[in-house]
Amino acid sequence: MIKAKGIAAQSATENLGPFSFSRREPKAHDVVIDIKFCGICHSDIHQVRNEWGGSIYPMVPGHEIAGVVRAIGTNVTKYKVGDHVGIGCFVDSCRECDHCKQDLDQYCLEGNTLTYNAYERDGKTPTYGGYSDVIVADEKYVLRIPKSIPLDKAAPLLCAGVTLYSPLMHWKTGPGKKVGIMGLGGLGHMGVKIARALGAEVTVLSHSDKKREDALKMGAHHFLLTKDADVFKKNANTFDLIINTVSAEINMNDYFGLLKLDSTLVVVGVPDKPLSIHPFPLVMMRRSYSGSVIGSIKETQEMLDFCAKHNIVPEIEVISPNQVNEAYLRVLKSDVRYRFVMDMGKL
Amino acid sequence: MIKAKGIAAQSATENLGPFSFSRREPKAHDVVIDIKFCGICHSDIHQVRNEWGGSIYPMVPGHEIAGVVRAIGTNVTKYKVGDHVGIGCFVDSCRECDHCKQDLDQYCLEGNTLTYNAYERDGKTPTYGGYSDVIVADEKYVLRIPKSIPLDKAAPLLCAGVTLYSPLMHWKTGPGKKVGIMGLGGLGHMGVKIARALGAEVTVLSHSDKKREDALKMGAHHFLLTKDADVFKKNANTFDLIINTVSAEINMNDYFGLLKLDSTLVVVGVPDKPLSIHPFPLVMMRRSYSGSVIGSIKETQEMLDFCAKHNIVPEIEVISPNQVNEAYLRVLKSDVRYRFVMDMGKL
Repeated sequence: MIKAKGIAAQSATENLGPFSFSRREPKAHDVVIDIKFCGICHSDIHQVRNEWGGSIYPMVPGHEIAGVVRAIGTNVTKYKVGDHVGIGCFVDSCRECDHCKQDLDQYCLEGNTLTYNAYERDGKTPTYGGYSDVIVADEKYVLRIPKSIPLDKAAPLLCAGVTLYSPLMHWKTGPGKKVGIMGLGGLGHMGVKIARALGAEVTVLSHSDKKREDALKMGAHHFLLTKDADVFKKNANTFDLIINTVSAEINMNDYFGLLKLDSTLVVVGVPDKPLSIHPFPLVMMRRSYSGSVIGSIKETQEMLDFCAKHNIVPEIEVISPNQVNEAYLRVLKSDVRYRFVMDMGKL
Repeated sequence: MIKAKGIAAQSATENLGPFSFSRREPKAHDVVIDIKFCGICHSDIHQVRNEWGGSIYPMVPGHEIAGVVRAIGTNVTKYKVGDHVGIGCFVDSCRECDHCKQDLDQYCLEGNTLTYNAYERDGKTPTYGGYSDVIVADEKYVLRIPKSIPLDKAAPLLCAGVTLYSPLMHWKTGPGKKVGIMGLGGLGHMGVKIARALGAEVTVLSHSDKKREDALKMGAHHFLLTKDADVFKKNANTFDLIINTVSAEINMNDYFGLLKLDSTLVVVGVPDKPLSIHPFPLVMMRRSYSGSVIGSIKETQEMLDFCAKHNIVPEIEVISPNQVNEAYLRVLKSDVRYRFVMDMGKL
């Protein structure tokens, strides 16, 4: 076994603290990764606090993992020692269902194996995430991080990046398309940068005027302050795609009216509670309300290569792992520009 | 002016009663139609009772109109006296917006002119519907009813028929596709017949076991009783398209789980109240919740020709116009198999 140290939650109500555990010895297709950086995702907090139910403790969160290959199993062909690599939200899937076979493993019909707060496919070995110094995973679920992207900035791409890239690609964002991004946070700011690089006309929709300057600096063509009720009238029937990254409760019916005929509003930030949806604005312009979750392994690699090509990186604040509890409080207050990344070397 | 007699609601709270009024003299492109039959749509009741707000009284409802051409304007080319024709939910549109130009006049950006409970494009002349003996409309918004479809059975196709045909076509129903129809009423039973004729595998989802026999007789391959909670587990991830014709409040989240990856649940019966929707089942399989309203004039003609070709007609109960108030009460109790059609010759 490989000795590992990390930061864990022992229960839903305690602060995270130091934790010693072990990783498996690499099997034939495994890669052993020295974790250099790990991003803090809002979903880490939901799971640590058991807000979605079924949390497994002790929990070592973290699914925005960037590091360097320390060792490889006997049959590994994709990576060699010293390569820059990453791990995102899942470390395995059934590999045999229709979705896995079509490179849609994020929608594995058997359920993929989450990077943490889950069990390996044996159903009993808990998975531990990236708030740690080392991780072992099958090369098939490991991503190559292009050398031009610094590892600290690469980390948030593994979840926040692909969570926006995937729906932007699926709903065919590109030149001539008007895309709206609801919320300028960890997810939203990646959406702005990627949609802009794809050639779309990008609008940030936010309730906070403080985000205006940043939105435009990051590449948004327009900024709409959603506190202004006129905004919804003036911009009715103008958007080809809107991506909702806001997990707070929102009057979705207003936003549907912004969509053109046959256009879609995609949820990527799942609210804790159901929303009240009136089908009327959907019916009246054949609009759709859809969802999307992260992206496939194949798509995550494409996204990393796309970001390298277009010089897209997240805006981050690098912190030490011992600041994690404080960082959680700041995330909950939206006091982060725009993603915390922990320097796991300081563990 | 042309003298007309009909049945009107004088207010939201009174029974419908006899009403005399006049129709315009035919303009160059107008067709004068002797109304033979008119269907009763649930939306007639909503509007008579002002349940959607903004109702205009006196109101002559009716947008499932089948009749015979009595006279034509000087420039009419599509129709001649004696032709079998119909009128559906709208009698005009702006004709100039992007949607009208693309034969998507049901989604006219200026709002189309509803057959009743609306104003002509002059903004002041009220429109009166098919609960009457004669109607005058521009030939562009008049449909040809194939001679093989009896006029009484043709009437409900003009709204109920196209309301199902349009989403079935838009979401590409055909061989190899599994389609679910929620609710077996005036709308739903048309969905079963049309989806079957399109070559799909058709399932009726109903809370009433009494509908089982009819569903199978009409062409459904399967019937799922939705009171049985197991139904949702056993059939998870199996449908390519589900059309919701039920306007009652329903736990939609159960139904989303029935859809395959990237599949859609389409609302065509608009509930009075918003529904509580949790985005989780949408996010987890990139499913969509969409809406659709009636169909274009072009599509309505296609639907009529399709129904003639495939011998598709609604199940109807023909009544006399003086039974309208009683019929409304029976519609509200779902006591109709499956559409009331009034014989306007008995007016």
